[in-house]
Amino acid sequence: MSETQPSAAADAPLRGEEAIIQNYLAPLAAGLPGAFGLSDDCAALSPRPGHDIVLKTDPVAEGVHFLATDDPADIGWKALAVNVSDLAAKGATPLAYLMALSFPEAPTRTWMARFAKGLGDAQTAFGIALAGGDTDRRPGPLSISITVLGEVPAGRMVRRGTARAGDVLFVTGTLGAAALGLQVRLHPALASQLGLSDADFAEVVARSLRPQPRLAIREALQAHARAAMDLSDGLAKDLGRLCRASGCGAKVDLARLPLPAAVARAIRVDAGYWQAAVATGDDYEVLAAVAPEHADAFEAVGTAAGRAADAPFSITRIGRITAGTEPILTRPDGTAFSPQSKGWDHF
Amino acid sequence: MSETQPSAAADAPLRGEEAIIQNYLAPLAAGLPGAFGLSDDCAALSPRPGHDIVLKTDPVAEGVHFLATDDPADIGWKALAVNVSDLAAKGATPLAYLMALSFPEAPTRTWMARFAKGLGDAQTAFGIALAGGDTDRRPGPLSISITVLGEVPAGRMVRRGTARAGDVLFVTGTLGAAALGLQVRLHPALASQLGLSDADFAEVVARSLRPQPRLAIREALQAHARAAMDLSDGLAKDLGRLCRASGCGAKVDLARLPLPAAVARAIRVDAGYWQAAVATGDDYEVLAAVAPEHADAFEAVGTAAGRAADAPFSITRIGRITAGTEPILTRPDGTAFSPQSKGWDHF
Repeated sequence: MSETQPSAAADAPLRGEEAIIQNYLAPLAAGLPGAFGLSDDCAALSPRPGHDIVLKTDPVAEGVHFLATDDPADIGWKALAVNVSDLAAKGATPLAYLMALSFPEAPTRTWMARFAKGLGDAQTAFGIALAGGDTDRRPGPLSISITVLGEVPAGRMVRRGTARAGDVLFVTGTLGAAALGLQVRLHPALASQLGLSDADFAEVVARSLRPQPRLAIREALQAHARAAMDLSDGLAKDLGRLCRASGCGAKVDLARLPLPAAVARAIRVDAGYWQAAVATGDDYEVLAAVAPEHADAFEAVGTAAGRAADAPFSITRIGRITAGTEPILTRPDGTAFSPQSKGWDHF
Repeated sequence: MSETQPSAAADAPLRGEEAIIQNYLAPLAAGLPGAFGLSDDCAALSPRPGHDIVLKTDPVAEGVHFLATDDPADIGWKALAVNVSDLAAKGATPLAYLMALSFPEAPTRTWMARFAKGLGDAQTAFGIALAGGDTDRRPGPLSISITVLGEVPAGRMVRRGTARAGDVLFVTGTLGAAALGLQVRLHPALASQLGLSDADFAEVVARSLRPQPRLAIREALQAHARAAMDLSDGLAKDLGRLCRASGCGAKVDLARLPLPAAVARAIRVDAGYWQAAVATGDDYEVLAAVAPEHADAFEAVGTAAGRAADAPFSITRIGRITAGTEPILTRPDGTAFSPQSKGWDHF
């Protein structure tokens, strides 16, 4: 009587690994000849001559990186975005990804269709395609293990451990939005307590659900940056990693930190919200160290690219690399910020 | 008083993702310059000119692919071996791997040291090194998601979907050992019920714990095979996949199947053990379809390579690709084998 599938079928558990692969995942591999429509065990990639492959794996799991109640389209987007964000920070062009899905119970058709929709939208936005993967069932939270591959001109991956004293520190976009977004999703009453407008609320929730890898910054990084990394575990912790890898320190003036209006408002209500901006994570912005003589050019090229991006972003100077041994983050009142937690650690 | 660490420390949970990476994982990346000692977010690989990258991800989880009581060294070996087995079947040379570890609770130093030992031994045996990864904690079984990268001359990955009617079917090694090995580990009384000798028992247990990827078959595959895949889910199911991908059928004479002595003995006691040989999986042997005019050369080159391998193996003709639509497996008594289960499916 109706051309739409009965909802019983849509909500029924989807049985069979091959059905999941053929109906929902193979279409995501259509743009990549070496994926062979997911009909083979392995995929083949032909790197461009004179280029290196850049590699990263970053799994996401229910309860840690997303909530069970999230729209599966958002879950798919975020699982891919957090990995592509690493490629962006390395100056790499996305090529392909592999994905291992572990379900505690068989997903429904509706769930898989929405999940594939979010992944497909992310693929289009980031210029990447599915090359292969694996699907299984096991107890525990839903987990999505993605491995991304990108390419850079040979020897030109922008490293983490190559910053030097005197370099200017930049970040893309704004910090703290995703952390505050998760808070207001978990505790909706917070939004009015903090005086957030509807637009502020919507912005931080969107940043929490759909991170935007800063791919437009790649050319500025390749041309002008000495070192870079993406911010996934909070500025304090990640800058500490960049300093440790580079054998240097850093000074950051938190008054310069680019904050979304909602986070700035939250901090005015309760200074404890500096934590969200500096030490909670999930930002997926790029932190770059740029030699002083390149700083103006980096800022100009990066700003132009950020303005032209599909999801526009700014570039902000936040401090300097120093000859010290660790980052010092100074609050607007001149006191040092010592976060209770220095960012997300799983152990 | 003693130079060895106190056992309390060895058995205490290992806190801190960075400690796990620095102490146990970074040494596994020492042989790969582009892994940057795991100090960066990403790794860089420089493919040889004129070569394609071959990619595969195959996660393993406690309770599915290994037991919680297994020696962590065996768990590490197997997690890498099941992925490298795919590269072998594609004619690809191993290059590097990424690994995402998910622990339900922090591992002990003893556990991590044994796990790293098994991985390190496997790396040496397979000629591969760790390029990067991720470590986190989440509820559920311990899971190890490995993505392997290999290389083949451009356009020369041995595919699954390229077999043709008339091709001769070969398998490496023997089938059913790992499936029987798991059975006797779970039910030790079975070994005497089936009349297994101590040597038979040891062999099938070893095959279950430490699969041997057939890397030595790569040159024979590259030179002579039309299609190939590794056998992970049982011959019946995996041959079905090869037939479906190639649009053809197959005939296999089970009397020709290469069985280890223990499996042959078990089948004599109970014909139900055909299931172990044909439809249980975990074999990690290579199934190859070879054009008739290449069959003798494949057999000769493959046999010589298998004899010279560190873990020697044979090559056996088991049947033919046909113009049909599915594989037909015939028992020694002439009846068709119709497995109750057609091999492992997670759903």
